[in-house]
Amino acid sequence: MSTDLLARLSFNQMTADPWPLERAVQQCAAHNVPHIAVWRHKFEDAAKASALIRSAGLGVSSLCRGGWFSAPTPAERRARIADNRLAIEQAAQLGARVLVIVSGPANGQSLDDARATVLDGLREVLPDAERAGITLGIEPLHPMYAAERPVVVTLRQANDMAEALASPAAGVVIDAFHVWWDPEVYAQIERARGRIAGFHVSDWPVPLPGILMGRAMMGDGVIELRRLRRAVEAAGYTGPIEVEIFNDAVWANADDSLLPRIQQRFLDHV
Amino acid sequence: MSTDLLARLSFNQMTADPWPLERAVQQCAAHNVPHIAVWRHKFEDAAKASALIRSAGLGVSSLCRGGWFSAPTPAERRARIADNRLAIEQAAQLGARVLVIVSGPANGQSLDDARATVLDGLREVLPDAERAGITLGIEPLHPMYAAERPVVVTLRQANDMAEALASPAAGVVIDAFHVWWDPEVYAQIERARGRIAGFHVSDWPVPLPGILMGRAMMGDGVIELRRLRRAVEAAGYTGPIEVEIFNDAVWANADDSLLPRIQQRFLDHV
Repeated sequence: MSTDLLARLSFNQMTADPWPLERAVQQCAAHNVPHIAVWRHKFEDAAKASALIRSAGLGVSSLCRGGWFSAPTPAERRARIADNRLAIEQAAQLGARVLVIVSGPANGQSLDDARATVLDGLREVLPDAERAGITLGIEPLHPMYAAERPVVVTLRQANDMAEALASPAAGVVIDAFHVWWDPEVYAQIERARGRIAGFHVSDWPVPLPGILMGRAMMGDGVIELRRLRRAVEAAGYTGPIEVEIFNDAVWANADDSLLPRIQQRFLDHV
Repeated sequence: MSTDLLARLSFNQMTADPWPLERAVQQCAAHNVPHIAVWRHKFEDAAKASALIRSAGLGVSSLCRGGWFSAPTPAERRARIADNRLAIEQAAQLGARVLVIVSGPANGQSLDDARATVLDGLREVLPDAERAGITLGIEPLHPMYAAERPVVVTLRQANDMAEALASPAAGVVIDAFHVWWDPEVYAQIERARGRIAGFHVSDWPVPLPGILMGRAMMGDGVIELRRLRRAVEAAGYTGPIEVEIFNDAVWANADDSLLPRIQQRFLDHV
């Protein structure tokens, strides 16, 4: 049982921001973490990154990230579409099944307009994703980020969008840190059945030390992680579970003991 | 038009935490702010506070706050019920129409259990509110507070609770800072028709300087305040509009110019 769960662990490389991709891959291989989630700004050449990851025997649970569709000018919006097409290509090169989509902020538009822009952008790149066999994983972010990062802030909203897109290449990504507070979260997880493209874990410490860097290691906060994991499984998702922790202390102390610590916390709390 | 709007302005006294009630009342009277929202920890004797406020000719838009039902032990839960009954009495003494209800944190319970505890607590004190002619205004707080303050974090949830209570003494309070991010906010404002017991304004600056003290003066952030105000009016609420700003700089600079500044920002942005 514990072996089964560890076989689903994916190390999201932003959990150790100071590490270059080479070190993240080496650490995963050394500690038998079978999956990694890759960020685009962490590699220059997708083919080389892919070769590195494959040679270590790792799977890529997702590529982070596409989206940010709601740019302030039409020219910038075209550039965002082009960048999302590039991200889909990179995901395919890496052998990732999923491109994580963070919708992007309103950028001076009204929230309604920005939300419409996001759906339009997704519609435009969806055929590319379908051809490449990549799922666009729409990830709602916590509402406290709504002014700066996403206009998609609830799982209901992500489900609405994925439903509207009506394609096997349109899914949702469920990050416990972003959705745990939602009175509807279990109903919306069940509604996401067949469309769940990823599940991310970390924890919400009390008090939260900061808005961007406040996430904690699993077990150091109040999120009902096991209940969420079981709900996601009950809704049919049995793929990789990413550990994604943005936390200055975790980053500062990222050494050879990080992955074993994550594995233990993962077993104890997820 | 502008006179009409200013006639609805209520000064929530936590906007100037350093001021004792006497000074807050004096400033409202001096600047023709017709309403004040009073916090319970700011007075010792409700009768004296009431006399002070009435002699200045002010109305009390709300008393803050009741709630915090989800205490960890049965004895503490009984104490919370008793305290809410006292708050209802105090609201009546002050001539407030509304007691603002902040649900309180999970306190070690599961979120589901805590939410049930809140509804049970409201049910228990509802007859007291009905007898006193006080509306219990269930205020959803921003989801970023869910771990420490409220388990009620969306207007949908507050509406669900008020509907379940099915009494003229059960309403909802809509604070722009807490709900602006919600993709459902306009639908839920319309759904709240007949149950809106208050409307609070401030703003969400970018970046948000802090979780608890991050609110800004109206116009210094991204909230579509006018649109929200019009939606609340379209849903039938034409009562006082409270300005409630928790902000260290506003507190530190609270002087005789604060209320005129608020009035101007209120006219320009709300």
